[in-house]
Amino acid sequence: MEETINIALSIYKDYQKQNLANKFVNFLIGWDSQTEAPNDCFEARGRQIEVLSTATYKLNTSPELVKAVQTLYENRTSLNEITAHEIVVVKKNIDKIIKVPMEEFVELSTLLASSQNIWAKAKVENNFELFKPTLKRIIELLKLYLSHLETPKLKGYNILLDEYEPGFTTKEYDEFFDTLKKELVPFVKKVATKALQYNHSFTNFKYPKDDQKKFAKKIMDTLCFNHNKGLMKESEHPFTTGFGTSDVRFTVHYHEDNLASAIFSAIHELGHATYEMQVDPALDVTLSGGGASLAMHESQSRFYENIIGRSPAFWKSLFPKLKEIFPKQFKSINLNDFLKHINEVKCSLIRTEADELTYPLHIMVRYDIEKALFNNEITVDELPVIWNKLMKEYLGVEVPNNKEGILQDIHWAGAAFGYFPTYALGSAYAAQIYHSMKKDLNIKEILKSSSTKEINEWLKEKIHCYGAAKYPQEILKLATKEKFKPQYYVTYLIKKYSKIYDIKW
Amino acid sequence: MEETINIALSIYKDYQKQNLANKFVNFLIGWDSQTEAPNDCFEARGRQIEVLSTATYKLNTSPELVKAVQTLYENRTSLNEITAHEIVVVKKNIDKIIKVPMEEFVELSTLLASSQNIWAKAKVENNFELFKPTLKRIIELLKLYLSHLETPKLKGYNILLDEYEPGFTTKEYDEFFDTLKKELVPFVKKVATKALQYNHSFTNFKYPKDDQKKFAKKIMDTLCFNHNKGLMKESEHPFTTGFGTSDVRFTVHYHEDNLASAIFSAIHELGHATYEMQVDPALDVTLSGGGASLAMHESQSRFYENIIGRSPAFWKSLFPKLKEIFPKQFKSINLNDFLKHINEVKCSLIRTEADELTYPLHIMVRYDIEKALFNNEITVDELPVIWNKLMKEYLGVEVPNNKEGILQDIHWAGAAFGYFPTYALGSAYAAQIYHSMKKDLNIKEILKSSSTKEINEWLKEKIHCYGAAKYPQEILKLATKEKFKPQYYVTYLIKKYSKIYDIKW
Repeated sequence: MEETINIALSIYKDYQKQNLANKFVNFLIGWDSQTEAPNDCFEARGRQIEVLSTATYKLNTSPELVKAVQTLYENRTSLNEITAHEIVVVKKNIDKIIKVPMEEFVELSTLLASSQNIWAKAKVENNFELFKPTLKRIIELLKLYLSHLETPKLKGYNILLDEYEPGFTTKEYDEFFDTLKKELVPFVKKVATKALQYNHSFTNFKYPKDDQKKFAKKIMDTLCFNHNKGLMKESEHPFTTGFGTSDVRFTVHYHEDNLASAIFSAIHELGHATYEMQVDPALDVTLSGGGASLAMHESQSRFYENIIGRSPAFWKSLFPKLKEIFPKQFKSINLNDFLKHINEVKCSLIRTEADELTYPLHIMVRYDIEKALFNNEITVDELPVIWNKLMKEYLGVEVPNNKEGILQDIHWAGAAFGYFPTYALGSAYAAQIYHSMKKDLNIKEILKSSSTKEINEWLKEKIHCYGAAKYPQEILKLATKEKFKPQYYVTYLIKKYSKIYDIKW
Repeated sequence: MEETINIALSIYKDYQKQNLANKFVNFLIGWDSQTEAPNDCFEARGRQIEVLSTATYKLNTSPELVKAVQTLYENRTSLNEITAHEIVVVKKNIDKIIKVPMEEFVELSTLLASSQNIWAKAKVENNFELFKPTLKRIIELLKLYLSHLETPKLKGYNILLDEYEPGFTTKEYDEFFDTLKKELVPFVKKVATKALQYNHSFTNFKYPKDDQKKFAKKIMDTLCFNHNKGLMKESEHPFTTGFGTSDVRFTVHYHEDNLASAIFSAIHELGHATYEMQVDPALDVTLSGGGASLAMHESQSRFYENIIGRSPAFWKSLFPKLKEIFPKQFKSINLNDFLKHINEVKCSLIRTEADELTYPLHIMVRYDIEKALFNNEITVDELPVIWNKLMKEYLGVEVPNNKEGILQDIHWAGAAFGYFPTYALGSAYAAQIYHSMKKDLNIKEILKSSSTKEINEWLKEKIHCYGAAKYPQEILKLATKEKFKPQYYVTYLIKKYSKIYDIKW
């Protein structure tokens, strides 16, 4: 028996290596495509991706591997803890791929090589029709994909939700969003009736890109980014990617008429990047590197962006540096003006620019649409109309055009349906983690030193180090000594914003 | 029989696709490694490259492919012209790989994933010892590689030379360099006794990088670079790379105290890029895309850099634009001053900064060293001393340190021995091509329009369109109606520089 396990393990080790090399190649292609590849290269690039994804499919479905994984799965109690967990995850993944015909797998991968580019063009040109055929085909292929995977326990959209956050389906998300609707929406309505008084003249100025870049570097220093293990670049839509702990990259997008945008997307992406960099490097040679799940990843980015990054303590040392780089723009502005600005609640159009409080409402719009799409209750043609209707309903705003409406996000162009809900869930994880961290650390005191070092260390020990070697719910429980409770999120938001808006609640 | 050929063709078509996907991946890895990858990622990257190069080795040596290529080779008269040529080239390549043990192939590929990084560090630190162990291992592995490939006709260094320029071995190169030694070296000695009189105050100024970048963009426009099919970036050592005709990239390096450096490396790399972009796009799905050979490629870069880029006609329209961007630096400078500066002959240390006339002498230093290394006449330990001795002999200069001596070039760190001679040969091809072009085009007249469009077109039709679908010597003969004659090069140089230096020769 031991001999059989050893043979299976050796087959699996080889698969790990090949799989890592594939991931590395995909990382590079994605990074290049989204940051600098020239417009006309995508047709040829699509041909190469077709070949590469065929190879990936074959790698993941080889009968030899399937058999080895089955053997290891059955004998997982004799494996070390990390490998045992990995085998469970890999088996679940392989069991799925094997049910999907290779042609469909390859068609989707190939389509995705150009779809984000088509979306980008459609967005710039404010032309939903341009993107519609691609989006339709993506959804058709996803539905076809789901049709192969249905089990009595897991069907349709739930399969996608579970892929992005293991254990979370419409049942759990409906519960979560219902809590938010019940407890948060009335509060948001109350906040919306009040206005913050402060000197906002600085928002009328232009902020040259090079100066913004200088300040972004100061933020990198504050969050202790290691330049030997990663880099910052520009792209249309900010994102973080990487390969292992020694190559972590993120992007920002500078808007000359909106200083806060790049600042908070930098802090956000640095949250993701810090997570990736602080995984135990020993996991770099396994398939258990990277974050535990999307929601856990988002919990880290939103923790740094909102809980840390919009706090008075964080800006106490950084605000003078901001004034130094932009003396003209901030001439008569004080720290309080700036803090009010970055914590101002406004029912607005763009998710990525939304404030912390209304953010989950943007997610609800997308969650409702995705559910309805995969339940065949609505069609792609109807999307702009439905989008605009839901934005009116949840946020009370009129959507003036598709560029600022249905076309604003890149995700659907990447077939990432079921992804958005993890953003709201991540914010809720973050609030629960924050509650726990406060018991161990004096966060205000730490931030006086212009460095998040001790906070990074705490997160490394409690969350980051595990990588994907445990399920997110396990890690959350280890870190906070409780299972997930959305109430922490609601309490955090109401406490923070009733203070800022001077509301009794 | 036809059936057998069809089966072989179908196997070959599949190989083409896989091979192109590999080339694509290698292109991306190389580009990323040389332009932005973070310092600490190379160890992990090496592991992935090991896996990828193992796959490449297996792809190129699969018994099924070897058999199919053999069948197609025997029946090549029944194939179309392009495939027939490609099969001859591919067979030569496969026949070689198959003789090399996989472990050696993979070890070299893996070593090369980090060696250029080690070299870069050694160069910055002026520390040859740091690079020596890597260089030693590269040469050992190359010698081992050559030991597998020796035939009665082709041995040692000649195998490498023939890889970089088919049909060229020490016999041909010795002849070529002997011509240069005999006819050029006495002329250079004469030139070295004279000095050019001009106002060179502009060389004492600083040239901010952003302004240099602006001017580099003007040069791209002049050479009609298509921004939808490529891009320009920065790197330590300027280079051109790409994948097919729709993704062509080059880099420059800006030196704030040397304006001419980035200008001429931009024109040089744009020559390479123009070649890649103008290959028949139909060849993008074959293995016959890209340039015909390294010397042919270099003929194009040097044609644009020296013959076009240092000519009075080229600068007539560009010089005012240069003055516009650098008004302070060029205040009292006229076109003639600038032309003298960019055509000034100086026996100097750095190959990439060398003038057109002394450039081939730098190549001779490297050629002599490579020949001696692979004939086991010298060792790696002796390299700095021998380098310095040869520089004194050919160029009359004292080398003050290894950074500006033996460590100056990236090539050997990439195992590219046998590559340098193609640089000199390319210059000679360029002179012969120029001689031919002048019969068809009025180059001075064309350059009045601030665009090389008609020159690009001529080269496209005569040289670029063929890609690698013909041998370089065939293309040269088609384009110039003669076989290669080094005399055109000697004549061109002596005519040009005796005029500039007012020498009767």
